[in-house]
Amino acid sequence: MHVIVNAAMSVDGKLSTRHREQVAISGAEDFDRVDALRADSDAVMVGVGTVLADDPSLTVDDRERIDARTERGDPPQPARVIADSRLRTPTDATVYDDAAETILLASDTATDQALTEARTKGATVVTAGEDRVDLSVAFDRLETHGIEQVMVEGGGELVFSLFEAGLVDELSVFVGSIMIGGRDAPTLSDGDGFTDRFPQLRLRDIERIDDGALLRYHVSGR
Amino acid sequence: MHVIVNAAMSVDGKLSTRHREQVAISGAEDFDRVDALRADSDAVMVGVGTVLADDPSLTVDDRERIDARTERGDPPQPARVIADSRLRTPTDATVYDDAAETILLASDTATDQALTEARTKGATVVTAGEDRVDLSVAFDRLETHGIEQVMVEGGGELVFSLFEAGLVDELSVFVGSIMIGGRDAPTLSDGDGFTDRFPQLRLRDIERIDDGALLRYHVSGR
Ligand SMILES: NC(=O)c1ccc[n+]([C@@H]2O[C@H](COP(=O)([O-])OP(=O)(O)OC[C@H]3O[C@@H](n4cnc5c(N)ncnc54)[C@H](OP(=O)(O)O)[C@@H]3O)[C@@H](O)[C@H]2O)c1
Ligand SMILES: NC(=O)c1ccc[n+]([C@@H]2O[C@H](COP(=O)([O-])OP(=O)(O)OC[C@H]3O[C@@H](n4cnc5c(N)ncnc54)[C@H](OP(=O)(O)O)[C@@H]3O)[C@@H](O)[C@H]2O)c1
Repeated sequence: MHVIVNAAMSVDGKLSTRHREQVAISGAEDFDRVDALRADSDAVMVGVGTVLADDPSLTVDDRERIDARTERGDPPQPARVIADSRLRTPTDATVYDDAAETILLASDTATDQALTEARTKGATVVTAGEDRVDLSVAFDRLETHGIEQVMVEGGGELVFSLFEAGLVDELSVFVGSIMIGGRDAPTLSDGDGFTDRFPQLRLRDIERIDDGALLRYHVSGR
Repeated sequence: MHVIVNAAMSVDGKLSTRHREQVAISGAEDFDRVDALRADSDAVMVGVGTVLADDPSLTVDDRERIDARTERGDPPQPARVIADSRLRTPTDATVYDDAAETILLASDTATDQALTEARTKGATVVTAGEDRVDLSVAFDRLETHGIEQVMVEGGGELVFSLFEAGLVDELSVFVGSIMIGGRDAPTLSDGDGFTDRFPQLRLRDIERIDDGALLRYHVSGR
């Protein structure tokens, strides 16, 4: 599976404020780039932390891109994938609307009641892992669902785990011309952090878009 | 006073690991750029957190740059300025060697004993502020010492305070092609963080150096 991580951060690496409130980091040009990236992917993925904080829709906006998907035989929208071990996605979350397929990745900690509830809401539930979602196993399962390219939009907890598991192929970061600050604000890569062996990236290109910088990397191993 | 903040961070905004251990983020080309920036400044500043973590020398390396400084009537080395409210700089710190002048910015919380000790070690102590160093007042005092350009090298606590006080004119960030990760690792701008009004930056230029990206900004107000 080909995994692309894409996010917008402030110049100091933050995804949002310490209150986990979204901030306008990028602009129209970057939104359009992200829309195109979603349209090119079989699935768009976030962690449940992002669902709880932002209640995103994770869908492609542009009509022509949606039409192009159906013309090539794909579903109109990429699937929405949520890493959600205990199935904490609220029942009124936007990802439960019928704009696109929704796949929840859960672990053995999810209760039968939560599983039934999620399925009743129309979601596909894939379980992998004892405590938290085992992302490698879950991605193998997604591949058998026909998902070959996943675009991950955050947040920092999920991004760190994906790098730790060596699952990321590409990273695109839009660096907005704004400082958010805060030792407790979420960053592009949170989790425990690396302390000796670090994932090495190869800077593929640098581009100025909107009023910021887009940095694109190939990811090699640690 | 003209204030330039310069730092090297990982792609996720980290200055070091969660153990506050330095990581090679930049390379030879960026070291040379930083050396030139130091040589162009009247003072090089860090917070005491950086002194405790890294024991830096904060001096200009290149012989020609040192000679050029003396030729134009400047001291061979820029002054070293440490934001150190309670005078926690260890007596065996490298900044106490006689390679350059050292100015400690303290607050009213510094004890008489600590003041005497620092002065005995050869440092100039400037007190400003009740609890933490009042950076605006301290910078006014530095100006009367003839310091017109300060280059600030971090860490994240000091950088946040300088932006919060509206004291920063320029920001240069080298973004290394490495991921450090960690919700507790120091970032370019820590402190409490901004939550509603954010410092706005203007991206001046983008350049690829070493294997990373150098982003340079003008800073306007909040
Ligand atoms: N600027 C941007 O581009 C952008 C994009 C996305 C998000 N954000 C911001 O990021 C913040 C949310 O980020 P976040 O880091 O708190 O949340 P997150 O990464 O979206 O979600 C983290 C959660 O995912 C679940 N999870 C399941 N398996 C996991 C695994 N193997 N590794 C890691 N997590 C796993 C965990 O909860 P369980 O253990 O309960 O499953 C974990 O708490 C919000 O403030 C949002 O606004 C910004
Ligand atoms: N990659 C890079 O370019 C780079 C550069 C520098 C540092 N670093 C890393 O950054 C880390 C240290 O950063 P840090 O954020 O912990 O420390 P820091 O910003 O260097 O120092 C913070 C300390 O300065 C003192 N201070 C005095 N007045 C202040 C004020 N008005 N506002 C804020 N601080 C004030 C405070 O201690 P008192 O209250 O006791 O005075 C505070 O704890 C280390 O891990 C180091 O390796 C990396």
